[in-house]
Amino acid sequence: MKRNAKVSTAVIRRLPRYYRHLSELQRAGVVRISSSALGKSMGLTASQIRQDLFCFGEFGQQGYGYKVDSLKEEIGEILGIHRGHTIVVLGTGNLGRAIIQNFKFSSNGFQLLAAFDVSSQVVGTRIAGVPVYHARELEQFLAGHRVDVGLLTVPISAAQEMANRLVSAGVRGIWNFTNRELSVPQQDVVVESVHFSDSLLALSYMISQGGDGQPDTQEESE
Amino acid sequence: MKRNAKVSTAVIRRLPRYYRHLSELQRAGVVRISSSALGKSMGLTASQIRQDLFCFGEFGQQGYGYKVDSLKEEIGEILGIHRGHTIVVLGTGNLGRAIIQNFKFSSNGFQLLAAFDVSSQVVGTRIAGVPVYHARELEQFLAGHRVDVGLLTVPISAAQEMANRLVSAGVRGIWNFTNRELSVPQQDVVVESVHFSDSLLALSYMISQGGDGQPDTQEESE
Repeated sequence: MKRNAKVSTAVIRRLPRYYRHLSELQRAGVVRISSSALGKSMGLTASQIRQDLFCFGEFGQQGYGYKVDSLKEEIGEILGIHRGHTIVVLGTGNLGRAIIQNFKFSSNGFQLLAAFDVSSQVVGTRIAGVPVYHARELEQFLAGHRVDVGLLTVPISAAQEMANRLVSAGVRGIWNFTNRELSVPQQDVVVESVHFSDSLLALSYMISQGGDGQPDTQEESE
Repeated sequence: MKRNAKVSTAVIRRLPRYYRHLSELQRAGVVRISSSALGKSMGLTASQIRQDLFCFGEFGQQGYGYKVDSLKEEIGEILGIHRGHTIVVLGTGNLGRAIIQNFKFSSNGFQLLAAFDVSSQVVGTRIAGVPVYHARELEQFLAGHRVDVGLLTVPISAAQEMANRLVSAGVRGIWNFTNRELSVPQQDVVVESVHFSDSLLALSYMISQGGDGQPDTQEESE
């Protein structure tokens, strides 16, 4: 499949939404869908969808639309869902615990191997079957297991140090929930930050404007 | 100040990041910053920053850069931070509890008025000082209080019904953490969904590509 190394962030951001929508269509029993119908369900134009998917090669047949299951598989492939990615969680406070217990890592192609904390209350226990080790054992664990991503839900004061330790130990990605901007010089390490406040402030803007520009249903044309 | 009704989603998405970075610069004691320096710290080009801010009027002086505190204030104003927005939380499971206890609603201009649940274990208690009422009291509460936004962390099976009830009761925004696409026909109600899976799948894509296109540090040029 053709790959385009310079895919725009906006397209990268839409790929998981395609995957999510196609999964829902698949569950709903839809076998084939036109780009215009898919666009309608996602608030995108048909041409935008064709442009997006064209970044990754040819999908569908002119006039026949897309086969839902095969397009979903193709996009899952592009997203790396079948690469057996592994992840560990650093910090088992409310948020860390919520994510460990509720987030479906496996349906996103990730295996959750372990969690780390410093509290004697949780170290040595299991959360939803996931073993919780002491943070001082992190390097030892990472030396013994291939871990692709570290999920950070530690206190903001510990965020940068834990990020440094993860990077030194060779993780390739940090999923950052600490609401602290992490400085990671290594070009080959990806930091993906989930800033709840950015999301709420965007919502704040939109209700202040009277509901214009819902991000779920509008994208700028490219 | 000039307002542009047709601000692109990408710009709306960057505004909270500007606000966050400017707050950090302010804490760091920076008084004035050039668009190129601000851009560098945010992974944007100086011209992109000037373009973004131009959507909302003239900021800064040619050659003198931006005054950090006043630009932060202006952007906070645009984001509606001083409008006294109010919010209620629906669902006090792990995630709802984590958000109630840890998320700084007030620094984002929101007052958290109450939480709602159906579990007798929590109804009638307080979480971080926030009263938890039974979900059946939702309409009565919304009738008696101006509530702008409902935060949804209910089980996915209850998500659409609770969204319908919030909309019928007149909220203007739904902050959706349920990972379920909500159907909200009302054009004037904004749905802002936080899909953890979209974030992790974008990270999955980026580490699969070997770290290209970090969303925290790259945006497509517009």
